[in-house]
Amino acid sequence: MKDILRVLAAYYPELWPAGNIGDDIRLMRDAGINTVRMGEFAWADMEPSPGVFNLDFFSEVMVKLHDNGIDTVFCTPSATPPVWLSHNHPERLFMGTDGIRMMHGARQHFCNNNPFFRKRSRIVVGAIAKKISKLPGLVAWQIDNEMKSHVSECCCEECGRQWRQWLKNRYGSIKELNKLWGTSLWSQKYSSFSQVPVPLKTPFAHNPSLQTNYRIFSREKIAEFQDEQVEIIRKYSKAPITHNSNVRHYLNHAEHYRNLDFASFDAYYDSDNYSKMLMDYDIWRNLKNGRKFWVMETGPSHSGCIFGYPKLHKKSYLNAELTAAFALGAGGFGYWLWRQQRTGPEMPHGAIISSWGEPTIGFDDVKQAGGSLEKIAPLLTSSENVNAEIKITYSDIARAFFLTEPLEGIDYIDKMQELYKSVLETGFHRDLVPENADLKGCRLLLTPYLPHIADESLEKALSFVKDGGTWIVGPLSGCRTADHALYTESALHPELEKAAGVKTVFTFSPTNNDISGTAFGLAAPLSIWSSFFRTTTAKPLGTTNDSRLADLAFLTENKYGRGRIVMLGSMPSGDQGKLMLKKMIGHYAADLRISQKLDLPQGNLAVPRKNKDGIFWFVINMDGKGCSFKYGKSGHVKIEPYGFRIIK
Amino acid sequence: MKDILRVLAAYYPELWPAGNIGDDIRLMRDAGINTVRMGEFAWADMEPSPGVFNLDFFSEVMVKLHDNGIDTVFCTPSATPPVWLSHNHPERLFMGTDGIRMMHGARQHFCNNNPFFRKRSRIVVGAIAKKISKLPGLVAWQIDNEMKSHVSECCCEECGRQWRQWLKNRYGSIKELNKLWGTSLWSQKYSSFSQVPVPLKTPFAHNPSLQTNYRIFSREKIAEFQDEQVEIIRKYSKAPITHNSNVRHYLNHAEHYRNLDFASFDAYYDSDNYSKMLMDYDIWRNLKNGRKFWVMETGPSHSGCIFGYPKLHKKSYLNAELTAAFALGAGGFGYWLWRQQRTGPEMPHGAIISSWGEPTIGFDDVKQAGGSLEKIAPLLTSSENVNAEIKITYSDIARAFFLTEPLEGIDYIDKMQELYKSVLETGFHRDLVPENADLKGCRLLLTPYLPHIADESLEKALSFVKDGGTWIVGPLSGCRTADHALYTESALHPELEKAAGVKTVFTFSPTNNDISGTAFGLAAPLSIWSSFFRTTTAKPLGTTNDSRLADLAFLTENKYGRGRIVMLGSMPSGDQGKLMLKKMIGHYAADLRISQKLDLPQGNLAVPRKNKDGIFWFVINMDGKGCSFKYGKSGHVKIEPYGFRIIK
Amino acid sequence: MKDILRVLAAYYPELWPAGNIGDDIRLMRDAGINTVRMGEFAWADMEPSPGVFNLDFFSEVMVKLHDNGIDTVFCTPSATPPVWLSHNHPERLFMGTDGIRMMHGARQHFCNNNPFFRKRSRIVVGAIAKKISKLPGLVAWQIDNEMKSHVSECCCEECGRQWRQWLKNRYGSIKELNKLWGTSLWSQKYSSFSQVPVPLKTPFAHNPSLQTNYRIFSREKIAEFQDEQVEIIRKYSKAPITHNSNVRHYLNHAEHYRNLDFASFDAYYDSDNYSKMLMDYDIWRNLKNGRKFWVMETGPSHSGCIFGYPKLHKKSYLNAELTAAFALGAGGFGYWLWRQQRTGPEMPHGAIISSWGEPTIGFDDVKQAGGSLEKIAPLLTSSENVNAEIKITYSDIARAFFLTEPLEGIDYIDKMQELYKSVLETGFHRDLVPENADLKGCRLLLTPYLPHIADESLEKALSFVKDGGTWIVGPLSGCRTADHALYTESALHPELEKAAGVKTVFTFSPTNNDISGTAFGLAAPLSIWSSFFRTTTAKPLGTTNDSRLADLAFLTENKYGRGRIVMLGSMPSGDQGKLMLKKMIGHYAADLRISQKLDLPQGNLAVPRKNKDGIFWFVINMDGKGCSFKYGKSGHVKIEPYGFRIIK
Repeated sequence: MKDILRVLAAYYPELWPAGNIGDDIRLMRDAGINTVRMGEFAWADMEPSPGVFNLDFFSEVMVKLHDNGIDTVFCTPSATPPVWLSHNHPERLFMGTDGIRMMHGARQHFCNNNPFFRKRSRIVVGAIAKKISKLPGLVAWQIDNEMKSHVSECCCEECGRQWRQWLKNRYGSIKELNKLWGTSLWSQKYSSFSQVPVPLKTPFAHNPSLQTNYRIFSREKIAEFQDEQVEIIRKYSKAPITHNSNVRHYLNHAEHYRNLDFASFDAYYDSDNYSKMLMDYDIWRNLKNGRKFWVMETGPSHSGCIFGYPKLHKKSYLNAELTAAFALGAGGFGYWLWRQQRTGPEMPHGAIISSWGEPTIGFDDVKQAGGSLEKIAPLLTSSENVNAEIKITYSDIARAFFLTEPLEGIDYIDKMQELYKSVLETGFHRDLVPENADLKGCRLLLTPYLPHIADESLEKALSFVKDGGTWIVGPLSGCRTADHALYTESALHPELEKAAGVKTVFTFSPTNNDISGTAFGLAAPLSIWSSFFRTTTAKPLGTTNDSRLADLAFLTENKYGRGRIVMLGSMPSGDQGKLMLKKMIGHYAADLRISQKLDLPQGNLAVPRKNKDGIFWFVINMDGKGCSFKYGKSGHVKIEPYGFRIIK
Repeated sequence: MKDILRVLAAYYPELWPAGNIGDDIRLMRDAGINTVRMGEFAWADMEPSPGVFNLDFFSEVMVKLHDNGIDTVFCTPSATPPVWLSHNHPERLFMGTDGIRMMHGARQHFCNNNPFFRKRSRIVVGAIAKKISKLPGLVAWQIDNEMKSHVSECCCEECGRQWRQWLKNRYGSIKELNKLWGTSLWSQKYSSFSQVPVPLKTPFAHNPSLQTNYRIFSREKIAEFQDEQVEIIRKYSKAPITHNSNVRHYLNHAEHYRNLDFASFDAYYDSDNYSKMLMDYDIWRNLKNGRKFWVMETGPSHSGCIFGYPKLHKKSYLNAELTAAFALGAGGFGYWLWRQQRTGPEMPHGAIISSWGEPTIGFDDVKQAGGSLEKIAPLLTSSENVNAEIKITYSDIARAFFLTEPLEGIDYIDKMQELYKSVLETGFHRDLVPENADLKGCRLLLTPYLPHIADESLEKALSFVKDGGTWIVGPLSGCRTADHALYTESALHPELEKAAGVKTVFTFSPTNNDISGTAFGLAAPLSIWSSFFRTTTAKPLGTTNDSRLADLAFLTENKYGRGRIVMLGSMPSGDQGKLMLKKMIGHYAADLRISQKLDLPQGNLAVPRKNKDGIFWFVINMDGKGCSFKYGKSGHVKIEPYGFRIIK
Repeated sequence: MKDILRVLAAYYPELWPAGNIGDDIRLMRDAGINTVRMGEFAWADMEPSPGVFNLDFFSEVMVKLHDNGIDTVFCTPSATPPVWLSHNHPERLFMGTDGIRMMHGARQHFCNNNPFFRKRSRIVVGAIAKKISKLPGLVAWQIDNEMKSHVSECCCEECGRQWRQWLKNRYGSIKELNKLWGTSLWSQKYSSFSQVPVPLKTPFAHNPSLQTNYRIFSREKIAEFQDEQVEIIRKYSKAPITHNSNVRHYLNHAEHYRNLDFASFDAYYDSDNYSKMLMDYDIWRNLKNGRKFWVMETGPSHSGCIFGYPKLHKKSYLNAELTAAFALGAGGFGYWLWRQQRTGPEMPHGAIISSWGEPTIGFDDVKQAGGSLEKIAPLLTSSENVNAEIKITYSDIARAFFLTEPLEGIDYIDKMQELYKSVLETGFHRDLVPENADLKGCRLLLTPYLPHIADESLEKALSFVKDGGTWIVGPLSGCRTADHALYTESALHPELEKAAGVKTVFTFSPTNNDISGTAFGLAAPLSIWSSFFRTTTAKPLGTTNDSRLADLAFLTENKYGRGRIVMLGSMPSGDQGKLMLKKMIGHYAADLRISQKLDLPQGNLAVPRKNKDGIFWFVINMDGKGCSFKYGKSGHVKIEPYGFRIIK
């Protein structure tokens, strides 16, 4: 992949008269699009009947685009199998927990574990890879499309068969499974793997151990399905391979991207929710170390479908969204979609060109953002992101645990976005990293909402602390075993409590119980399922107003090696709670001499990058209000709404 | 049908001891009931086992009623097939989109397309028609009861078979279907009609083209089922035939009533919602041109069932409801029901007589309203409704489009009721007419919320404009093809944009986006999926405060022939929005010299009628507050709460 | 059962290493636990494969506990059949009204009417009874666990078969069923019992007669299933037998406990909702006359599961909850659970000991409450409850009627709890008694929300009135026949109207209709489906502001024998409505010289008990605010928050 910064558009030439292509190319060049993505829903066009392939159309389009300076990302079409694959074969289709089979007519209606589907998928991917790999302008591959966005776990018979095989591999013996899942509870004990059910409907909840394992199984299987495709493509092509996911899809991204070459994602927040987009940048940058991520899809003005749409982007917001993306490590920024869908459920979705072939309300913004990119491209390609000294653990396995056990309605992503916003508002540069990430360069690590801390993750974190790092752990982190059970030696991972110099005495939720905590000079209501600690070697930092917790702390600090472990047993909430979090982060950042920040008014983003001359900063106005701030000795910087400046 | 104005009650003598009939007749006469409706749920009594008919009971009741001056509307009982029709035959029963079959035990549990059901239905209808047609007092027939009130589209195998046949007839070739539905999208392409699915559950939405067509198919099929019955009855009887529907039922009324002799409907709004009842009158009057409509069912005091009930009517409200009905073109006004149900889910429903045979809280109001009718009957039968100069297009096909594509939660009927209320408050007399209605006499036509404008409707409207009419089009009108797709020449129907002298530049929804529009000296927030226009020959009337729309208009006016087309691209909302709509209507009404109104305080209705002496007015107090207004040179008119006056 | 007051904990030694038992016993003794409950979910451990029994583990635990002074309640494990009972046999599993079968993996997933399940259940219960009955420390048996808590009525084929047999027994002939259910309505008429459906999905509601009967059938069947177990246990054991239900479970408790030896129940209200707990005490004390009831399960601090949890108990609340229980007639007070679940959906549920074996936040409260009990035990065991002069009818059959016909969203239990709270706030001692209870000692009987009053209940109540009692009847009482139909002689039970000297003129709901009633010097909005009366011999006590009801009363009083019947036709609502209710009760209590109350500030409970010296009072602070009041001539009593005092 050449080091060209990509502005993409999702392109569906198969849906339009061939005569449109010339207009499309002209308008793409005008809009600043240098790359298109194609093919991801076109299985029926590519293979109209079993074994009959027709890829000439796409080949010709690719060549024509390339002749006009536009490159292509080509996709495999497995998200939308043609009707001939399911007609009269309901047993190949997805079955939800209600036991109802899906019908042909939308996307992701297939069971990804169905052997016949897998076989047909391998065949079509092979045919595509063979043909397309030879064409000019091919810059990357995308596998499938937004896997597991519409559906989560399939519960069909075939999945049941594979599930039981998977369990056998995982546990070795049914005795081990019974022990770790605690199946004596409610007479769930199994005498053979063949008896273990899939999570179809029950009068009350399935065993969380079963549920979470089924989620993990499903995520492994869909990654396996992807890997099958990757392997085939690699036989024919050297172009890098990606997949376009989204934080909310039912995948384990750390695993799902392991065999991919770079990360890309889709996200459609409106301009009011820019902090969520920034969080995504900070997540996806860190998923494939050292490789630029792509925003594969975002809306030029708004997303939407026949059931609704969010707000319109504010004028020029794209400029900030795109420059922030590239400053934060993007290699590509893609719009969905080029030309408004003429049919189907996404007709109301924002596009760059309308169904009648003319610029939409988003067009000018796309063009403006592209223009900005052109100006900063040299600076971007000659510099790189700065490794953040503050890192936050982000985990899809944690999310799977909360999907099983939401407790007080916890949505993992919502909680992480809320916490991220507080960190963002401190102004410090930050990375969101997978559980088991390399912590080189990190000084302050936050690990909130991680119900299970795997032994290797714990080891890595402790070693980071030994070397001088500060690790803030919690709330809820380390409270469940790998099999979604409780520990029996302590409330939290026994090694964690030991290292943190604490002993959890009570666990319960202070939410709505008039319990407030005091720390860093502030008091705030405590919330969420919590641990209250007796300190052994730690010092208490935060205590409560509840007499039953008189000797206990919700926040503690313990020296460990050359660093320290800070246990955040309970979540301070409300405005005061956010303030307390920021104070805590500020306190440790100061102590650790973390200086990756500029003093900016809220609503503005400072991104440090480095080149041969050292560190410089992208300062971007994200809230559309513009800003003005002092910089350097007597400097004064002014930024237009959604504009940016580069400062040293 | 003799020109007698009918006050009806739904009568179920089969549910009560024969001895009650004498009491019923006595009380009916006291209450002013001159007609009953019977038979619509009595299949099991009429045909207790297959082929064994017992119609003597109903015959005897009819004769007895007739002997006492009470006529009968007789119904076919197909809404409630007996248990012997479904027992051990689940394949004959309705199947929803979740694939779950219905069970015997309520109403409409059958698949109306099941051949065995159709056959048995023909047999029972034939037996009834043969016997009942000869009896005295028969004034009309009702087919079935409230078809498709509880269920919408059946998705069973038999429906699938007929659906594919229907598609074959509609499209001729699968290629044509593929083209119009855009099935290349998401690999939905079909190689034969046999592959096209019914809309059973999918992970995301079915193709809107499929969905809307399935809705149309289902509406045609139920009309076909009705026509089968109509044909049989006509062999034996000359009495006019109707069906009792409701705007919310899943029918295409324009088609459903085509082969019926007169329109009748059921409606149960409480007295606070009288404007919805008036809208119904204005709809149903115009469904069967030149034939009086009937209110077949309304509550004497309140409706209700075991799951709840709306508010009670205010005292004397029936007087206003009934006089308004007859003034606006009713030929009958029916109460559901005569005697409170003793068993079943509707026990709490208001009735005229209680389960223990005595007057209910509604009785006196029924009697009072009947008394009013008696007084005005001569005037009503010697006069007729005045053709409204303001007409509003009302379409069940539009509703089907919105059921498929609700966008920001649009409920077609709610939106039309909201808009109707604004028109009603201007005081002008108005008709709600089907898409393809005769526009004779119309000066101002409003066509809002009509996603697809059929070519013949467009032609008719344009011809109306050419002849001097003013056509206000939109919002959302003309934005979808007949197959629920987008146009590719323009946002709206290409001929419409041309005739209107506009070019849609942007489409999106301003709802919640702080975009306001200014027109007729008022500013109001704009809302709902919109078109913003560049004018070619039109003049802009309404512009916005959004810089991206600086050169565009949301409201335009274009001369066309001797008339003009006003494009309402976006919906002004809130109180100011309603005011703007009223100002717009007032403006054009003044310009067109529409004078079909009296100046009355809000809450009062003026209905113009004409007889040999010319125009006169029914003025009815609808809000229960009474009113007093100046009329003529020095006249002063006072109306009691829910009372009425006739003025010249 | 020895007259020892029991403090229990639910104990699951099968889920833990055997080595824990010593610690458990030590901590139980510390916490004041003298009894455990065991075995209720352990079928798979007891019978790991069909016919292979292993009860030694439980036997040994029981003996060890007994050696340490801890007795045992032993349970049958039928709530959680092992997987070998359902594997490959979906036909044995529960099927809801949606027709979807349950899957193994939680609790209550079986059809309790399945013959194979019944057989296996009898076998395991026999094996348990035989073995455990001989062991020391066995103080009671519990059948199953919280029957019908997760599911209501099964609709499988086997249930259908038994349902039709049940109907045959109930009605004798299908003609009788047709008559009482009014099946002519909607062509539901059956020609044989074999045609009567189970309440699987229909387009609209099933006949309420069918629905309510199906509920009654289901409740009888689950009682029959329990009786089967009871009979087997009695062959081997003399220990008393109970079941642990909850007011919200889908049982008819009066019937369900008929063959049991004592009542016990589970309840988990938080401390803010103590009035609901007190209502439970007042219900369950009266279910098995003359036998102490047990609180079999309540939370030591909070309940909860993976989907959430209520508030934490306020500190020391347990002290008030437990002393109130024993004062109000408890013989046992049990905590769920001893040791926090290590796995499964209830991991977050409060326990006495944590998963890591240490005291939880609830431990100290458990201990404190146990200490209180120890102090008052001699007084409790030497005294007994006083028969309340005010009794309130409480009926699960009434609840079944409202489940069928909720009208304006009526939840029977919510309504009863609301009304109970008003009675509680009057301070009078009260009993909640089954429909057909012995009324000895009662002076004032309230019978609200009882749609069907059975003839024998009516007879009993009228005889109570004849003897001088005052009976307040309504709202809604007596408005439905035994088969959930309306009467045809009158709105309410004909004999009731006659005895009450009233004639219902109108029935409808005044809710949201601006209708207020005046009585006892207060005016309040009227609500809920109501009867408005013309008095024959009664005197009107409460009239309304609605002109249509001018001559009618919503509240009447009629002398009957030496007593009187007060008809409450409509429910006064809001704060004024509650005040009116309290005034009414106060009025009649004064008149009847009911003196079972102490004058206490709100938030405190006075419980009269009697011993050989006469009446004395437990005064308990329930709201955690403590209290201070004058007592006797110059006495002044002060009570600590959640504390209690015994006064003469």
